[in-house]
Amino acid sequence: MPYEPPMAEHRVVIVGGGFGGLNVARELGREPRVSATLVDRRNFHLFQPLLYQVATGALSPGDIAQPLRSILRRNANTTVLLGEAVGLDAEGRRVILSDGGPIPYDTLVVATGARHSYFGHDDWASNAPGLKSIDDAVAIRRRILIAYEAAEREADLERRREWMTFVIVGGGPTGVELAGALGEIANDTLRRDFRSIHPPDSRIILVEALDRVLPPYPPDRSASARRQLERLGVEVRTGTRVIGMDDRSVRVLIGDREETIPCRTVLWAAGVQASSFAHAVAVAAGVETDRAGRIVVGRDLTVPGHPEIFVIGDAAVQPWRGDRPVPGVAQGAIQPGHYVGKVIRARLAGRPVGPFRYRDKGDVAVIGRLSGVTNIGWLGPFGRQGGFVAWLLWLVIHIFYLIGFANRIVVVVRWAWSFVTSGRGTRLITGTPLLPPIAEPAPPAWEPGDDVSGGEPG
Amino acid sequence: MPYEPPMAEHRVVIVGGGFGGLNVARELGREPRVSATLVDRRNFHLFQPLLYQVATGALSPGDIAQPLRSILRRNANTTVLLGEAVGLDAEGRRVILSDGGPIPYDTLVVATGARHSYFGHDDWASNAPGLKSIDDAVAIRRRILIAYEAAEREADLERRREWMTFVIVGGGPTGVELAGALGEIANDTLRRDFRSIHPPDSRIILVEALDRVLPPYPPDRSASARRQLERLGVEVRTGTRVIGMDDRSVRVLIGDREETIPCRTVLWAAGVQASSFAHAVAVAAGVETDRAGRIVVGRDLTVPGHPEIFVIGDAAVQPWRGDRPVPGVAQGAIQPGHYVGKVIRARLAGRPVGPFRYRDKGDVAVIGRLSGVTNIGWLGPFGRQGGFVAWLLWLVIHIFYLIGFANRIVVVVRWAWSFVTSGRGTRLITGTPLLPPIAEPAPPAWEPGDDVSGGEPG
Repeated sequence: MPYEPPMAEHRVVIVGGGFGGLNVARELGREPRVSATLVDRRNFHLFQPLLYQVATGALSPGDIAQPLRSILRRNANTTVLLGEAVGLDAEGRRVILSDGGPIPYDTLVVATGARHSYFGHDDWASNAPGLKSIDDAVAIRRRILIAYEAAEREADLERRREWMTFVIVGGGPTGVELAGALGEIANDTLRRDFRSIHPPDSRIILVEALDRVLPPYPPDRSASARRQLERLGVEVRTGTRVIGMDDRSVRVLIGDREETIPCRTVLWAAGVQASSFAHAVAVAAGVETDRAGRIVVGRDLTVPGHPEIFVIGDAAVQPWRGDRPVPGVAQGAIQPGHYVGKVIRARLAGRPVGPFRYRDKGDVAVIGRLSGVTNIGWLGPFGRQGGFVAWLLWLVIHIFYLIGFANRIVVVVRWAWSFVTSGRGTRLITGTPLLPPIAEPAPPAWEPGDDVSGGEPG
Repeated sequence: MPYEPPMAEHRVVIVGGGFGGLNVARELGREPRVSATLVDRRNFHLFQPLLYQVATGALSPGDIAQPLRSILRRNANTTVLLGEAVGLDAEGRRVILSDGGPIPYDTLVVATGARHSYFGHDDWASNAPGLKSIDDAVAIRRRILIAYEAAEREADLERRREWMTFVIVGGGPTGVELAGALGEIANDTLRRDFRSIHPPDSRIILVEALDRVLPPYPPDRSASARRQLERLGVEVRTGTRVIGMDDRSVRVLIGDREETIPCRTVLWAAGVQASSFAHAVAVAAGVETDRAGRIVVGRDLTVPGHPEIFVIGDAAVQPWRGDRPVPGVAQGAIQPGHYVGKVIRARLAGRPVGPFRYRDKGDVAVIGRLSGVTNIGWLGPFGRQGGFVAWLLWLVIHIFYLIGFANRIVVVVRWAWSFVTSGRGTRLITGTPLLPPIAEPAPPAWEPGDDVSGGEPG
């Protein structure tokens, strides 16, 4: 079939297929004057808010991801391109890809999100993986499960204790949800799965530098979250900073007291920074970024001096209340996505558009299996829930926003089933390495019937 | 919690958690005189017959795998151990693990299955991945999807053609099912997903050295399978042998005529050989193996001279009809698994047990989305189906045998949905590498509006 480029007046290039970029493309889907190109390093849209559920074995990657091509199949004016944007020619209006390209644009939308930041300690990355991609989630899942397998085989009680100690760095929503899920795994999921270890003996430590967890929430919600975490056996260490780590321990600073926590598994949920493409854009367009490398945009979400370049979501500092920017949650990308799509269409129609206004729909965090906290202003007092009601709200909201009808049913089925069995069906250890080498090959503690004389088969 | 070894008279070590080993463990689950240890390199049981569905994006790994620990949770006498058995001390009756161990046994069950064999051309492995593990399936899925992404971006028509050519080596059930699934992907799933390529133009070639596909089936079933494959646009090349390959082509021999097929994606579904542990067992026990390294066992599935060592499933040549051994299908491991469990219990009770008798339950292969072939002797004429009825039989049988209630529902939901949308929801490209480097960075063919003057944003 000979290739026929779509007829178009206006070429829009969207970099990033997350909540922001995807909603720009959808908003432009029925705009005949536009030909849109969505560039992403991955061929799928990822439902980030449930990523920690993959990391903890409750869901499969396929449950929370959908191919971008199938989501945008009916947008005849949209081309999906698997590729990595590495540079920008702001004057020539071209995006440079790592291979192939460049892609010319009339309007550019930068929606490349964020990756985790180790605050200058990039050497911690190998010890403390963060949770941003499907591959991160699968790697974390492997680490958690292998830790228990290694503990089961470890004869030395002290080393076994190290394997059963988990430190989560960062008390924001991701850290809280990870800690809650780990608490559930230790107390319910794996409770009866092992023979020589008792998973509820696991030590799960949540480390937060500030004085409370869930800083964006009001203090009473934070207190509620802390109580629920502690009920799951999680040690919540607020006012505690991580100052070092290796593959057997984490060093923390509480006030001016230093402490070393022996542990084999550290998960990073602390800082984020804008993607490297955002940096390239800032340099090329000569604009300001904040400490996290996010581009400071105007009230119309464009880059100062470049009305044809929009930056949205975690890659941008989007104005909201006075000096407080739009928070780094899904809604903080979804709403700008729709807004930018509308702006582009309005410009083509010669209509004026007002500045972007963020509507705070509130926050929900789930803690463990059947509890959580909410902070939903527009629901009034009812919006401030803890425990089961919060969890229900969370479930409804997330199922509702999950893209792909089959995914919704599948996710509901998996969860319904995991509540019946308190199991996590997809806790698979895939990929390599298989197991970390055990210090000395001592006969494993579990060795069956070792003090029993074996009977001869008849 | 201090470790207490299970009281037991008789220590059974089962190596391998596939269909064979798992069913031995289940059979022994309620036998108080036994303490069983199941050793596997993976922490999950894999439902092999649906593996190609993961490789082709219809199912997630989590849908066809279940953690061994949760399957065997209620077998208080059973310990699941994540580890790799690498050696056997037949005299000392101990299994040697790659790290930790050794594990003493009174009875050993070897159920380590098979891996693929390149007939001495192990250098082909990197070009032509086989399909035995979850990781294989995810890697193949990545290759197939990246091939289309690369074709979409490839300006050169010849190179694009290479990306859209797929060669499957081996016309057995796996090869036929892979070819059928690829045909479906090209004709239905991806049909409307791309802008510069037309997926139904893909070339899918199934290469089989013998004179027909599905050799184990009667000739008329093979003919039916061939017709159904060709209806999906698959080129079926029987009497054709692969004699060489590199990353841009496959060389085949048809009779004495040599031909080179330019293609970027080759999938290996040809030969299998017994696992390396089976080899170690054969050496240690000093017993005979066949060309594929499978251990020749007696009518009670034990190794000659070692009544305490059973070998079952793909690791063994299990006697059936005269010189014809039990076929390498799921039933060929499930039935021996139950048999061995019964034998061990009977020996402990001093009861005699007859030799193993394999009941041929017949074969079913699915081809594409709604068709297949069956060869089920005990169903009489009805057992010889083609097309939709065969596919229905296949669906029922596989859902029925799939372990884990949630998985069954999830799989049904995914399939039901994929029939409505003719989509394959879990076609995710995970892991690295992202994309193969494109020969020269020519401006990609899809570049939108390149012959259209871009209008200035208003």
